[in-house]
Amino acid sequence: MQKSPSASSLGPGGLDLAQAFFKPIQNCDPPSSTKRHTKISVIGVGNVGMAIAQTILTQDLADELALVDAKSDKLRGEMLDLQHAAAFLPRTKINASVDYSVTAGSDLCIVTAGARQNPGESRLNLLQRNVALFSNIIPPLAKYSPDSILLIVSNPVDVLTYVSWKLSGFPSNRVIGSGTNLDSSRFRFLIADHLDVNAQDVQAFIVGEHGDSSVALWSSISIGGVPVLSFLKNQQIAYEKQTLENIHKAVVESAYEVISLKGYTSWAIGYSVANLARSLLRDQRKIHPVSVLAKGFYGIDGGEVFLSLPAQLGRGGVLGVTNIHLTDEEVQRLRKSAETILEFQSQLGL
Amino acid sequence: MQKSPSASSLGPGGLDLAQAFFKPIQNCDPPSSTKRHTKISVIGVGNVGMAIAQTILTQDLADELALVDAKSDKLRGEMLDLQHAAAFLPRTKINASVDYSVTAGSDLCIVTAGARQNPGESRLNLLQRNVALFSNIIPPLAKYSPDSILLIVSNPVDVLTYVSWKLSGFPSNRVIGSGTNLDSSRFRFLIADHLDVNAQDVQAFIVGEHGDSSVALWSSISIGGVPVLSFLKNQQIAYEKQTLENIHKAVVESAYEVISLKGYTSWAIGYSVANLARSLLRDQRKIHPVSVLAKGFYGIDGGEVFLSLPAQLGRGGVLGVTNIHLTDEEVQRLRKSAETILEFQSQLGL
Amino acid sequence: MQKSPSASSLGPGGLDLAQAFFKPIQNCDPPSSTKRHTKISVIGVGNVGMAIAQTILTQDLADELALVDAKSDKLRGEMLDLQHAAAFLPRTKINASVDYSVTAGSDLCIVTAGARQNPGESRLNLLQRNVALFSNIIPPLAKYSPDSILLIVSNPVDVLTYVSWKLSGFPSNRVIGSGTNLDSSRFRFLIADHLDVNAQDVQAFIVGEHGDSSVALWSSISIGGVPVLSFLKNQQIAYEKQTLENIHKAVVESAYEVISLKGYTSWAIGYSVANLARSLLRDQRKIHPVSVLAKGFYGIDGGEVFLSLPAQLGRGGVLGVTNIHLTDEEVQRLRKSAETILEFQSQLGL
Amino acid sequence: MQKSPSASSLGPGGLDLAQAFFKPIQNCDPPSSTKRHTKISVIGVGNVGMAIAQTILTQDLADELALVDAKSDKLRGEMLDLQHAAAFLPRTKINASVDYSVTAGSDLCIVTAGARQNPGESRLNLLQRNVALFSNIIPPLAKYSPDSILLIVSNPVDVLTYVSWKLSGFPSNRVIGSGTNLDSSRFRFLIADHLDVNAQDVQAFIVGEHGDSSVALWSSISIGGVPVLSFLKNQQIAYEKQTLENIHKAVVESAYEVISLKGYTSWAIGYSVANLARSLLRDQRKIHPVSVLAKGFYGIDGGEVFLSLPAQLGRGGVLGVTNIHLTDEEVQRLRKSAETILEFQSQLGL
Repeated sequence: MQKSPSASSLGPGGLDLAQAFFKPIQNCDPPSSTKRHTKISVIGVGNVGMAIAQTILTQDLADELALVDAKSDKLRGEMLDLQHAAAFLPRTKINASVDYSVTAGSDLCIVTAGARQNPGESRLNLLQRNVALFSNIIPPLAKYSPDSILLIVSNPVDVLTYVSWKLSGFPSNRVIGSGTNLDSSRFRFLIADHLDVNAQDVQAFIVGEHGDSSVALWSSISIGGVPVLSFLKNQQIAYEKQTLENIHKAVVESAYEVISLKGYTSWAIGYSVANLARSLLRDQRKIHPVSVLAKGFYGIDGGEVFLSLPAQLGRGGVLGVTNIHLTDEEVQRLRKSAETILEFQSQLGL
Repeated sequence: MQKSPSASSLGPGGLDLAQAFFKPIQNCDPPSSTKRHTKISVIGVGNVGMAIAQTILTQDLADELALVDAKSDKLRGEMLDLQHAAAFLPRTKINASVDYSVTAGSDLCIVTAGARQNPGESRLNLLQRNVALFSNIIPPLAKYSPDSILLIVSNPVDVLTYVSWKLSGFPSNRVIGSGTNLDSSRFRFLIADHLDVNAQDVQAFIVGEHGDSSVALWSSISIGGVPVLSFLKNQQIAYEKQTLENIHKAVVESAYEVISLKGYTSWAIGYSVANLARSLLRDQRKIHPVSVLAKGFYGIDGGEVFLSLPAQLGRGGVLGVTNIHLTDEEVQRLRKSAETILEFQSQLGL
Repeated sequence: MQKSPSASSLGPGGLDLAQAFFKPIQNCDPPSSTKRHTKISVIGVGNVGMAIAQTILTQDLADELALVDAKSDKLRGEMLDLQHAAAFLPRTKINASVDYSVTAGSDLCIVTAGARQNPGESRLNLLQRNVALFSNIIPPLAKYSPDSILLIVSNPVDVLTYVSWKLSGFPSNRVIGSGTNLDSSRFRFLIADHLDVNAQDVQAFIVGEHGDSSVALWSSISIGGVPVLSFLKNQQIAYEKQTLENIHKAVVESAYEVISLKGYTSWAIGYSVANLARSLLRDQRKIHPVSVLAKGFYGIDGGEVFLSLPAQLGRGGVLGVTNIHLTDEEVQRLRKSAETILEFQSQLGL
Repeated sequence: MQKSPSASSLGPGGLDLAQAFFKPIQNCDPPSSTKRHTKISVIGVGNVGMAIAQTILTQDLADELALVDAKSDKLRGEMLDLQHAAAFLPRTKINASVDYSVTAGSDLCIVTAGARQNPGESRLNLLQRNVALFSNIIPPLAKYSPDSILLIVSNPVDVLTYVSWKLSGFPSNRVIGSGTNLDSSRFRFLIADHLDVNAQDVQAFIVGEHGDSSVALWSSISIGGVPVLSFLKNQQIAYEKQTLENIHKAVVESAYEVISLKGYTSWAIGYSVANLARSLLRDQRKIHPVSVLAKGFYGIDGGEVFLSLPAQLGRGGVLGVTNIHLTDEEVQRLRKSAETILEFQSQLGL
């Protein structure tokens, strides 16, 4: 599907321009088959997958982009729509196929595919369908790109990242879930919007399970490097714990709000995942709250579970987890999330 | 709708951080009400409008972005989805409202709103509905941003650009249709893909009416500055006129192909319009094939008609039209398009 | 000096291409004389001034760049050298002149000009020569760009920012010294380099007088949002105050080190000032440690003195000062710096 | 020289933050020694080398940058000055050493080192000294980065590119001279400045020997895709050949003019070479006039000679040479340049 069939109409009629237009120089290498460049594959070309692919393209993060989806028409339409913008962008090779061989040699595989909940379907049943789906996605990805990093975006992201880790056989540093990276970004936006500061100047982490039971780390909030809680304390400004909880609640609700208003979320998750892709592929060594193998942290010892923790990301994937101080209550919440997920996982029979 | 209501939950509970966090310096200006920055408004938040808005945001082309649509839920959902990415982007103020006052002081207004064709509806009837729609859009835009540039994307783009010109009362240099800018980009991609060169190195114009009757300027094709037709001639390479026609046909068909495959086009038109926005607002003085008042060019004298011609764009809008040489046949085609559009316009009773 | 004289050689011989190549459209505006775009002026085209100008150009921060220097040859050489890169950059209008009228209508004026210390010359004598120099620079800048922001880079930066404020008559929010912005950046690099993290993830402020007596705010150091001192405390990791002092010492020495090795500093100050320019002109509302009118902060009441404090910068210049908590010792150091500078200023007889 | 010694002062005193701050996750890879990233080495940290290095850094073209020079003080000063800007830039690892091992594993090596002409020294004598210099530079570069591309900037660039090709033993597609890339850019600027268009919209090639005997290809000039000579002919606008020659003369003189005014050229060559680096490393497949092995083109058959021709550049280096049509006169000039260079080369005794 790489070459647009319509483009081949340039060929017939005796017009083999390419051959005539360029001539090779002498004493040169044969055209090399192996090229050393950056390749990203996106699995699933729904609203989320395409927002990610398009943001990656605009931000010039890859030299090659491969798209995979089961729906061949939609897939080809999205590929062409991106290709038609070639004159406005740095050159990126864009391919698409229903066959995973198109992903061969990827540096990063981003998985956004996922089954939708049927009316009346239990959460477990939905997850089992997604596990079945992933058993068709992850093994071919791992086979065609054995050295790649897997970045899982599909929900429930923490369990599916664990599933992808198991199915791929990859070391844990190369299997990452987008986790609470977007939740943290919404947190930062709400604080920045209130104070009329730049959201990039606001540091604030939400960790733990992506979704309703996520844990906001109040002590992590700082603005331009100024820790907010100590600031308030030093200024003797009183605040109620309920106020902080309300901010967290607003973060959790804002995802539902967008879905109820426009039907899905796309742009923010697109930027969020492109941001992770940059840290990973350009070896930025930045700290992001993403879903990583959490066993051994904060007394999470019951089993292999993925949860979001502030992790340093670089070309090797997860380089380490920030040894951040949590309050006892925060630790309890984290552990409870871990137990819930572990019980859930035990029912999957992996 | 500017402030997220959920953000206001930061306020209660005695936590007025903003006041406490920053203190003004002495002898300073009062906070100025008038700011000199770059503002873009996008009217219509469908697939096309949002692809444009998101690309403008990623490429950091504006300091303020205003979205307008009649559907308030969808509108608010799209605004929030963009705002939630604040931590990943340079700071841009993003507002949205069903009320055009949100567009006040825009430097550029991009109109993507448009009625869809009903089954069995005539082209004229559809256009009349769109004219009615535009009579609710253009006057308030012109009122709130009397110095702005209008960039029309809705179809049929040439007639609706004329309509916008009439409704706005703006000088002709400040009313532009996206026209064949995207068609030309597809043309350049098809040639670049065939030759495996960078599409940015391919120059090639499609002019005239946006759509089936557009005119491909064969003599304008050059690659890396090498004119292709003279190249072929010099190399004594024969080609048939039909081959060239096939390329043009592939361009025209590729828009239909994307629509048939994914249901609509979005990404390429998003990049295309963001590219025009950059040339206009950053005074790039680049040449783009866009829909401009064509009266007086190439013997088009029958009336006021907008058609795509290679125009130089800058902060003042259309700075001039490139006085490019057309063959007699190309001129005939252009004139015929002009006549068809003029007859169409005469039925609108504007 | 705007038009390259050599370019005029295109004109003679009957080749008035420009006139022939573009034709105006009908019903258009007359070519507008007033354009709304972003203009930056750089005064002084030595190593520092040119590193700033070139970084601003590469980062596409301005639509127009004006250079001023007393040495007309050097000035024209630098202008031409930048102009010759036009094909590799977004279009920016670049002018240069010994006459300040070239700066008219600037949004931001960056002053890097300054006298060099003669052998045996006292610090006061040098400063007096610089004040004399500034009395020839600031008034014309203020006259030609009455609404601009002044950003002073010349040393001693705190006193010369005060001098510029006095000479310009501008409100204090529009007169800023680059201050300890670069010192803080060196501080962040040293910490990031040691921990192998991204320096953008390190928050750390140096405030006060630019130079040897600057004040490092230990409590402001955080990495990825994690405050380092509390982290060490929570982890029960002991450290000696001397260790922290050594880091600060390394920062202060690193400026001297670069000067002793290459003869001057240029690249880092260039990036640092371009970063401030972005925050100011694109209204980024970010917090930077820069030299601002410090009277009234931290008990500095002895007079009008400029010192670096964490300030929020935007289109209006200084939007406010972060009300950060300092230890008693830090406050004492700040006040002492203020007194030293004030006494120095009192000798200038302004 | 990689770690700043001063940074090590963070270590003593019991403050081993790095160890405490990050903890590894379980089941992860051992920290990999081999990383797949983009590395550029710049040999020579004079004005040209540093303008190149800094532009590469600002444009985020490499994940690692290595600097080599014989003067260790200057070298370390330049490295520190770039490193101090870390907080303002995407993370790039910057190393410097007098030892070529620092360049190991480079994707691209850019050579700017060169001897200066002594008073009264013959051109041949100067060249012989440069050949001696290159025999100490090229073999270690080739040894430490056997798969890299060599990009030669030192003058006389055509001969030294040939010398580098011989000394490296590399295939010809991986040895490139910056050649007339900058001359062509100056040509494009002069035309764009005259017409007040964007220089990126101007296509125009200067080919052949870099310097006074370069050949301007008049038929290659096009603006926004419109070939200028045919335009003039179609518009029946007369022009004299002398006018065109004057433009070329202005290009040749402009390099001398900058040198006479500011003492050297730096910014434009910096942007020019960074532009080539992007095309090469990001596989942009764009066409640039650069110095390539010209044997076999346009009847140049006398020997192995490097001359600038419009070449397509990508990850594999030179992908091909554009088979552009030259007039008989242009071909004669090219051949004459080739002969002069060949005779010169024959005296080198390589």
